[in-house]
Amino acid sequence: MFPKSFQKLIDHFASLPSVGPKMAERLVLHLWKYDQEKLDDFSQDLQGLKRNIHFCSQCFNISENGLCAICADKKREQNTICVVEEPLDIIALEKTRRMRGLYHVLGGTINAPDDKNNPLKINELITRLKSGNIEEVIIATNPTTEGEATALYLARLVRPLNIKITRLARGLPTGGDIEYADEATLSGAIEGRREL
Amino acid sequence: MFPKSFQKLIDHFASLPSVGPKMAERLVLHLWKYDQEKLDDFSQDLQGLKRNIHFCSQCFNISENGLCAICADKKREQNTICVVEEPLDIIALEKTRRMRGLYHVLGGTINAPDDKNNPLKINELITRLKSGNIEEVIIATNPTTEGEATALYLARLVRPLNIKITRLARGLPTGGDIEYADEATLSGAIEGRREL
Repeated sequence: MFPKSFQKLIDHFASLPSVGPKMAERLVLHLWKYDQEKLDDFSQDLQGLKRNIHFCSQCFNISENGLCAICADKKREQNTICVVEEPLDIIALEKTRRMRGLYHVLGGTINAPDDKNNPLKINELITRLKSGNIEEVIIATNPTTEGEATALYLARLVRPLNIKITRLARGLPTGGDIEYADEATLSGAIEGRREL
Repeated sequence: MFPKSFQKLIDHFASLPSVGPKMAERLVLHLWKYDQEKLDDFSQDLQGLKRNIHFCSQCFNISENGLCAICADKKREQNTICVVEEPLDIIALEKTRRMRGLYHVLGGTINAPDDKNNPLKINELITRLKSGNIEEVIIATNPTTEGEATALYLARLVRPLNIKITRLARGLPTGGDIEYADEATLSGAIEGRREL
């Protein structure tokens, strides 16, 4: 239905997560109205994406240099490591301003690694824990079946190292409504209840 | 929070319609895992988007050649022109296989042209109607306030030319539920009721 080159770009967009074929059509039609300069800029940034960004050699966060901005910051608490599934989790945690230590990006969960050719960075985590002066490991994998399984697996590996292991609390989300909370969330809130 | 070049690509995506900043982050992180060959292909198609696609010189649909595939097809009924707001409307109408004539893309509505520097193709429509052997103009602007206003405006321009003017029917969508239909839709369905 569309000219071939147009359809090809639609297919590129439609293969992205959360972009359906209908939305891809709309995006490409929108882009088509850009002036060429803006398109050039967009496409160059797209092409250079992998050239400029690497994994942090210590925590596997995304980084423009050998060490990411967090690992390179000597003011961060060097004795706490928060383990997350992916770099976007770091962004969310950093926004809270409550996490003052370092991070470690696993690259998915034990059942579902983000990239099949790239195993989870578990050995690298253990090496960091053994070599450093780490006092606490905060396991911040997602509160899903896969995330829980990964947390339990990591806890078993870390426990012999005699390092404190914590997991982010499960409970009712702020602004939530008990009436509409799902069973698993409510169970977590009851189990994790705290004295006032 | 993100490396600069990463953030710049996120901003490109976030400026697209229906893509929020959160989704843009996710898209860029997904793209970052592409191999370079696939990124090159995507970015080249993006850069070449305007090079290969033009407006059809007759109906202003998108086209790889001077005339779009529909205008170039001599088997289409040459005496009917369906007027739409934008090229994506043609795709939707063509899927019904009920439209056998030609099209004319306005490029928006009289209140909201798609591109402020590019006036609606109304003069071009009138020229086509005057020069050709056109028997019917089907006005298929959207069933919105802007689309209705545009339809009425066009009808007033076309009427002196002594050409039949029709408008797509308003009514209940197939699979819809009268109980949940909004007032305007239900009013349209009552006004447009047909004898059985």
